[in-house]
Amino acid sequence: MINAMNFADRMAALARAKQSVLTLGIDPQLDSAKAPGVAPSYSLARFCCEIIEACADQVVAVKFQLAFFEARGIDGMRALAEAIALSHRLGLPTVADGKRGDIGSTSAAYAEAFLSGGDFACDAMTVNPYLGADAIAPFLEYVERGRGLFVLVKTSNPSSGDFQDLAAPERPLWETVAARVKEWGEKFVGQAGFSSVGAVVGATYPAHAERARKLMPRALILVPGYGAQGASAGDALAAASSGQAPGVLVNASRAIMYAYRGRLGEKPPEAARRAAQEMRAELARALVARHG
Amino acid sequence: MINAMNFADRMAALARAKQSVLTLGIDPQLDSAKAPGVAPSYSLARFCCEIIEACADQVVAVKFQLAFFEARGIDGMRALAEAIALSHRLGLPTVADGKRGDIGSTSAAYAEAFLSGGDFACDAMTVNPYLGADAIAPFLEYVERGRGLFVLVKTSNPSSGDFQDLAAPERPLWETVAARVKEWGEKFVGQAGFSSVGAVVGATYPAHAERARKLMPRALILVPGYGAQGASAGDALAAASSGQAPGVLVNASRAIMYAYRGRLGEKPPEAARRAAQEMRAELARALVARHG
Repeated sequence: MINAMNFADRMAALARAKQSVLTLGIDPQLDSAKAPGVAPSYSLARFCCEIIEACADQVVAVKFQLAFFEARGIDGMRALAEAIALSHRLGLPTVADGKRGDIGSTSAAYAEAFLSGGDFACDAMTVNPYLGADAIAPFLEYVERGRGLFVLVKTSNPSSGDFQDLAAPERPLWETVAARVKEWGEKFVGQAGFSSVGAVVGATYPAHAERARKLMPRALILVPGYGAQGASAGDALAAASSGQAPGVLVNASRAIMYAYRGRLGEKPPEAARRAAQEMRAELARALVARHG
Repeated sequence: MINAMNFADRMAALARAKQSVLTLGIDPQLDSAKAPGVAPSYSLARFCCEIIEACADQVVAVKFQLAFFEARGIDGMRALAEAIALSHRLGLPTVADGKRGDIGSTSAAYAEAFLSGGDFACDAMTVNPYLGADAIAPFLEYVERGRGLFVLVKTSNPSSGDFQDLAAPERPLWETVAARVKEWGEKFVGQAGFSSVGAVVGATYPAHAERARKLMPRALILVPGYGAQGASAGDALAAASSGQAPGVLVNASRAIMYAYRGRLGEKPPEAARRAAQEMRAELARALVARHG
């Protein structure tokens, strides 16, 4: 069911075939049931699935923000399983964005949960590096089998510098994390030149993103922060490589899922599709402007 | 349903009433179905619930390691909800050990998932500090309403020093995190002298734990690593306060849940109860030895 080809190679092939670096973030916000234009009977699963279907040809992957499903309990987890299954049927790789990480035996269970064969099995997931190498190791076993990993390096939020930017001691902590991500990823570099052990680097700090690319020349970089968090397409591509494959996945969540709020008379799926088309095109133009 | 009294005060009252600092960790390991003495038809929910019931009077809280439930998909999440509900019926506070943390709007959803009123609602949860203050803020709103928080400071695993011990720049990163935990917790100090904004400090690094107590004199400290991870009762109490309430919760998971593997002829609940009794007594003796 899940492909065993190198994950970074799959993403490079999809980016080329679809001429897109956009990933669709599925973050069903807590107040979405109350949104105008969405009937109260509209289920969470249906809302997510309709948006995924509408955007399928515009995006290279679907990223699920697990928190919003957990917040809805068992029903939410069922909706998550349904939306993951639909994405796979549509040929879209999936990213479980849960920022997990724990002692080895527990990380192994997280890897089993999100990178193996169960209800929540995705193609890739995001992980938190605070616990160090042995918390990452169990996930690497799945990278060997075609899955992808995105380690938090420099996050997109306003306080991301609280700890990530501390001099630790001769360079910022996030740079030390980046150096480790490079090491962890070396044996997973695919034919397209990128590693399936990637990193999360927020679009909201473009100077950090350029530096991140220098520190991790082969990491596949997942870029949050484009759209609702305020970063431009140019900012979102600060870590794009100038080679044949850009090596970045630019995520937009709320700006796609909630596009209908700003588009009078459009249903959520139509509005999402239109927003995804615009963002894909904007990113493509910005990529040309950047590298020619 | 969930108490609105200051969480740290509730824990202090329970520690006094039960003469225990032990928390029961529910980590249903992935291979447990294959364990000798456990029939294959034995459901995950039943396994967890029988152990919680058997240990209820020995422990002050139940800590759920979310990974092991997620690894079993929807059925696992249903078992989690059932085991949480049973714990509450037994008057046992619950800790969702998921080490969550994300940008503000996502942390708000995690807080809603694990500290509010839904299927997975617990009394407290563990969080990861890597994203900084704005990732912690949404959880603090629930602390105001009687919930507890444990921020990862110094974890128990072998690689915990990879980043946590880096000089950042004039002191180890984990000490800087500890200083922030102290700040975040100041307005949540209860009548027993401890804050509901607590910390995770592993028993496997007792010198760090003593220092952690100095840096966070009022933090309620959750201590993993006792038992299966190799730390002694004395190590596990390195952060115990000498005041009226010890201000620590010492967790044991595998050493209780899987005690039956070392006790021929005992069923899992009996063996777990016996192990919990022994650990509770050992911790009580070590506490007396430490502070008289």
